[in-house]
Amino acid sequence: MGEALTVQPLSREAFAPFGNVLETDGAELRMINEGTTERFHALARAELIADGAAIISIFRGQPRAFPYSVTMMERHPLGSQAFFPLDNRPWLVIAAEDEEGRPGRPQAFLADGRQGVNYRANVWHHPLMALGQTSSFLVVDRDGEGVNLEEWSYPAPYVIAAATG
Amino acid sequence: MGEALTVQPLSREAFAPFGNVLETDGAELRMINEGTTERFHALARAELIADGAAIISIFRGQPRAFPYSVTMMERHPLGSQAFFPLDNRPWLVIAAEDEEGRPGRPQAFLADGRQGVNYRANVWHHPLMALGQTSSFLVVDRDGEGVNLEEWSYPAPYVIAAATG
Repeated sequence: MGEALTVQPLSREAFAPFGNVLETDGAELRMINEGTTERFHALARAELIADGAAIISIFRGQPRAFPYSVTMMERHPLGSQAFFPLDNRPWLVIAAEDEEGRPGRPQAFLADGRQGVNYRANVWHHPLMALGQTSSFLVVDRDGEGVNLEEWSYPAPYVIAAATG
Repeated sequence: MGEALTVQPLSREAFAPFGNVLETDGAELRMINEGTTERFHALARAELIADGAAIISIFRGQPRAFPYSVTMMERHPLGSQAFFPLDNRPWLVIAAEDEEGRPGRPQAFLADGRQGVNYRANVWHHPLMALGQTSSFLVVDRDGEGVNLEEWSYPAPYVIAAATG
């Protein structure tokens, strides 16, 4: 089967080694537009390395089945990548610290339907993990010249029994 | 009262003078993540003028009451500004062509709950117009040095009778 991974709730503190959590709780709030709009300011900043542009895309991901085997990770050396759920549905975030050019043990986080993340450039993470139903996400990442994708397959899988931990 | 404005449905064609419509219909589609994810690629590109960074924020806007008087417009000379609704609720987009440094007659568009827009840099637009209930939007715009806000008050208001036109 493979080594079991537990799932922890997504929080700024727990996710800090990997990037930002995009959520209103705890964010800097500015009132704008004559008091009609709350601006939760700069939850994340797009990183663009070696030029390139920040682009906005929509990802539509199929739901994953459990138990789920984490067999590989990827990273984007030239830019950050942000995901925000558009269906108010929980989803799974999986990231790992780098260990001499390879991903270490994955860490799995359950995001609620109002939480996004921004992976910093070169942070190992698992491809999009929607839950329950096909779900859409707004994505902000880098477009430009250069090789911006690296993948790594683990010698043995890690297994997530269920999305709720 | 002021001159009446009609509301038209938001579409790529109608909005082309002002920027991009962020929607999956008609977008370039790439299959990624071993076929588990559809990527609707590069619906918009963040414009960053005079340096600065692309940042991700959340705006929470109060709903507007109708009839609504459009009395002013604003623009951001140094960067684009994208809005995407997070509550799957229709909202109003109002933009205007520039006429010798001032906004011309406003054009109002009804966006559905799965349509966002990206105003190009220096495009006149109205502050966020949520409808019905307080609604949240993911926003991608520019942070950095320089004056990135210009406002203009119309000598006489334009009036939108209802959000549905």
